[in-house]
Amino acid sequence: MMKKTDQKIKNLDSIFKPKSIAVFGASNIPNKLGNVLMKNLTGNKFPGKIYPINPKYRTVAGLKCYSSVLEINEKVDCAIIATPAQTVIRILKECAQKKIPGAIVLSGGFGESGGADLERELKRTADENDIVVIGPNCLGIINPYSRVDSIFLPMYKLERPKVGAISFITQSGAVGTCVIDMVAKYGIGISKFISYGNATVINESDLLEYLLHDKETEQIVFYIEGTKDGKRLLENMKRVNMEKPIIVLKAGKYGGALKAAKSHTGNLAGNYLAYKAAFRQAKVIEAESLEELFDFVKIFNQTLPNGKRMMIITNGGGLGVLTADAIEENGLELAEITKESSVKLKEIIPEYTSVGNPLDMTADASVDDYKKSIEIVLNDPNVDGIFIDVLFQTPNMNEGIIDILNSASEDRRKPIVVTAVGGTFTEGYRKILESSGVPTYGAPLAAVKAMKKMVDYSLKSKCKKCIVRKNKKNG
Amino acid sequence: MMKKTDQKIKNLDSIFKPKSIAVFGASNIPNKLGNVLMKNLTGNKFPGKIYPINPKYRTVAGLKCYSSVLEINEKVDCAIIATPAQTVIRILKECAQKKIPGAIVLSGGFGESGGADLERELKRTADENDIVVIGPNCLGIINPYSRVDSIFLPMYKLERPKVGAISFITQSGAVGTCVIDMVAKYGIGISKFISYGNATVINESDLLEYLLHDKETEQIVFYIEGTKDGKRLLENMKRVNMEKPIIVLKAGKYGGALKAAKSHTGNLAGNYLAYKAAFRQAKVIEAESLEELFDFVKIFNQTLPNGKRMMIITNGGGLGVLTADAIEENGLELAEITKESSVKLKEIIPEYTSVGNPLDMTADASVDDYKKSIEIVLNDPNVDGIFIDVLFQTPNMNEGIIDILNSASEDRRKPIVVTAVGGTFTEGYRKILESSGVPTYGAPLAAVKAMKKMVDYSLKSKCKKCIVRKNKKNG
Repeated sequence: MMKKTDQKIKNLDSIFKPKSIAVFGASNIPNKLGNVLMKNLTGNKFPGKIYPINPKYRTVAGLKCYSSVLEINEKVDCAIIATPAQTVIRILKECAQKKIPGAIVLSGGFGESGGADLERELKRTADENDIVVIGPNCLGIINPYSRVDSIFLPMYKLERPKVGAISFITQSGAVGTCVIDMVAKYGIGISKFISYGNATVINESDLLEYLLHDKETEQIVFYIEGTKDGKRLLENMKRVNMEKPIIVLKAGKYGGALKAAKSHTGNLAGNYLAYKAAFRQAKVIEAESLEELFDFVKIFNQTLPNGKRMMIITNGGGLGVLTADAIEENGLELAEITKESSVKLKEIIPEYTSVGNPLDMTADASVDDYKKSIEIVLNDPNVDGIFIDVLFQTPNMNEGIIDILNSASEDRRKPIVVTAVGGTFTEGYRKILESSGVPTYGAPLAAVKAMKKMVDYSLKSKCKKCIVRKNKKNG
Repeated sequence: MMKKTDQKIKNLDSIFKPKSIAVFGASNIPNKLGNVLMKNLTGNKFPGKIYPINPKYRTVAGLKCYSSVLEINEKVDCAIIATPAQTVIRILKECAQKKIPGAIVLSGGFGESGGADLERELKRTADENDIVVIGPNCLGIINPYSRVDSIFLPMYKLERPKVGAISFITQSGAVGTCVIDMVAKYGIGISKFISYGNATVINESDLLEYLLHDKETEQIVFYIEGTKDGKRLLENMKRVNMEKPIIVLKAGKYGGALKAAKSHTGNLAGNYLAYKAAFRQAKVIEAESLEELFDFVKIFNQTLPNGKRMMIITNGGGLGVLTADAIEENGLELAEITKESSVKLKEIIPEYTSVGNPLDMTADASVDDYKKSIEIVLNDPNVDGIFIDVLFQTPNMNEGIIDILNSASEDRRKPIVVTAVGGTFTEGYRKILESSGVPTYGAPLAAVKAMKKMVDYSLKSKCKKCIVRKNKKNG
C-alpha cells in the first residue's frame, strides 16, 4: 500500500494534468474573478472539458453552465473554486460526492483574516475525502504543458510564459505573478507555476516533492514567507536541490514585515536566521531580493562552471571596468589567460590597444571580432566563465551578433552571460537572446551576482542531475 | 580681467550652445563615424549652420562640404573633430586661425594608447590659442535644448532623451550612452550629456562648474574612473552639491579593474577609499553600481523628505512585505500612522483585513481605493515618504490609476515612489508615469535604496537650492 503522503503527491496530477475541470463561481460579469478565470481557461485552449458551475447562468463563456457539480454525468478531475469562503466547505463536500480528486481554492477569508475555524474545517473535509487542495487564498496554477491556468489576472495585463523547464512555487500570489510576467516578457519558458496561499492541505514541501518527480521541471524557484513544518521543508529542500537547483527568496525577514506577512497568508513568518541556516544546510541558492530572484532564474540553463576564473569581452570599455569591479567585489576572479590566447587576441583588437582582462575591443569592434575572441576564450583552459558585455548601439554591430552569442551559449564548454545596457533597441536584442536561452542582464552587477551564485552551486551542491546534464550536453 | 578658468568655463558655451558647427571628418560612407555624426546633427534639426569638412567630398548629407575650415567665410563657434589622431593638431591650429573658441575631439589614439606626446601637444595647442576642448577619445555632448549631438551612435540604436533637468558627466562614453539610452526609453528628460574622455583640456571639475551655472540643470549624474586633480574635484563637488544634487559612480575600484580603466581613458584610476572619503566629505550621493546610478537618477525630482518614516500602500501583499523588509534592511523606518488615519483607512480596505504598514488593500483594491488611501497618508504627520506598490495586472486596476499616481507626485507634500513589477503591460504604464515625472521601479529593493539616498541627502547635505525648490513647489 502506498503511503498517505505519496498518494497525495500522486493525486496532484489531477490538478496539474486534468482531463476535465469544474469551475465553481464561473461568471458572466466582466472583471469578476470567475469571469476572468473562464476567459483564461478557454482562451488558453485547455484541451479537456470545462464545466462552469453557477446556478445563476445557463451558459458562461459559450459553455453549458451547471447549477451543481452533481448534475454532470462525466468524470471531473479538478475543481477550481472561486466562491465566497462560507460556501467552500459545502462545495468541497459535493466534490467528494462526485469523487473529484483535486481542487484549487482561490477564495480568501480563511486563516489569513480571522477564518481559522473555517480553514480547519476545510482541511478536515479535504483529508477525510482524500481531496488534494491547493490554497485557499491563492492564485492556483499555470501549467503551459496541459494548458491549465487558474490565475484570475487578465491575459492582456499579465503575459503567460511559454513551455520550458523552470517551475515556480510561491506563497504570495502577487510576487509570483510579477515574476511570471517578467519571465514571459523575455520569452523564458516555464514548467509549472504554483501559488499555494495558506498551504492548508498541500504545502510547499509537498510541491517540492511533486516537482522532484516532474519530468518537465529542471529547476525550481521558490518564494516563501513562512512555514508550519520547517523540519520537513529542510529535508525536502536538501533532497530536491541535489537533483534540481532550488532558488529561494525568503520574505518577512524583519519585525515590521512579520506582521504583514502573517495577515496576508495566515502563516507566521519565522525567524529569518533559522531560515538562512536551513538554506545553507540544504545548499539551495538564496536570492536576497526580488531583483536577485529574477536575475538568478535565467542563468541556470548554462553549463555549470568548474571554477571562478572569469573573462570579460567588451566593446564598451567602461562596462568592462564595472564588470571587473563587480567580479572582484563578489568573490569571483579575473582570469589570467594563456600566452597562446593572448597572442591570438592581439590580432583582433586595434593596434593601439593591448590585451587585458577585460578585453576591450573598443567601439570599433565588429561582429566577427566578437566571434573570434569568444572562440579563443572558450578554448582557454584558464577561463571558467565568460562575461560578454555588448554595446549593441555602435555602428559596427548588427543582427549577426545574435547568432554569435547564441552559438557561444550552445557551445556548452563554459557558461556565458551577456550584459547589454540600453533602451528599446537593446531591449529588443535582449528579448531575442533570452527567448533562445541566452541569459542577458541589463547591468554588470546583476550579471556578476548571478554567475557567482552558479559558481557556488556548482562547487558546493554537487547536484547530480546537473552534472549528468552537463556531461550529456558536452558530449 | 576674468580669471583664466572663468574664461574657460564661459567659453564652453561655444560648445554647448553654438550657432555654427564645423564637422572635421564628415563622411558619405555609411556607418563611418563621420557619417553617423552628420546624420545625427542634421536629423536632430540643429538650427544653426553645419559645415562638413573633408577634401574628398563636395557635399555631405546634402550640405556643401569644405576642403578646409579656412574656406568658410562665416564665423564658426564649434569644431567637432572625428579624424585620425595624427591630424588633430593640424586641425586645431586651423581652428585657432579661424578663431573657433571650442572643439570636441572624438578621435582616440592619445594618452590612452601610447600617444602621450600627442596628447601633450594637443593641450599646448589648445591652451596657447584659448580653445576649450572636450576629449579627446570621447563621445562629446548632447544638448537637447540647442540640439547639438556629437554622439556617433545611430539614433535608431541609441534613443535620445527629451529636454529636462538632469545633466550627465561621464568619463566612459560606453557607460554614459547606456544610461542615456535607458533614460530616453523611460521618457526622462535631460539637460546636458557630456562624455569627456581623456580630460586633456576641459576636465570633470570644469564641467561641474559649468553645470553649476547652467540654468537648465537641476541635478547632476557623474561617472568617474579617475582624476588628475583630486583636490579641485573635491572642492567643486562640495560647492556644486550644495546647489544641485550630485549622484556619482566610481569605477575601477579594484586592482584588476584599475589596469583596464587606465588603458581605456588614459587616467590612472586612484585608490577607491580616497574617493569614497571625498564623496562623503562633499556629501554627494554615491551609487555603488550602474543599477543604482540609474535608480537614483529618477527620484530627485521629488520633494525632499523630512525624515525616514515610510508608509507602504499596496494591492499585492507580497510586494508590500518585500518593501517592508527592504525598508528595515536599509535604515529607513516603517511609519506608525495616526489613529485618525487608521480609522479612515479601515473604511477603505476589505472588512476581513486590518490596517497595517504595509497597508494591504488586497487584489480587490480599486483605483478609487488608491486615491483615498494616498490622500489620507499624505495628510498624516507621522509619514515622511510613501511607497506605492501597484499590481497593474489585477482586474480592478485601469488607466485611471495613472492620474492618481501623477497627482500624488505633483502634490509635493511628500515624496512618493511607485513600484510595479511585470511584463509588457506593466512596463507600458511605468513609461507613461516616468515620462510625466513619477519615479517608478521594477522591484522593491531598488525603490527603497533610492528613497534612502534621498532621505540621506535631505537630512545631511542641506542643499540650499533644493530647499528653495521644495518650498516654492509647496507653496
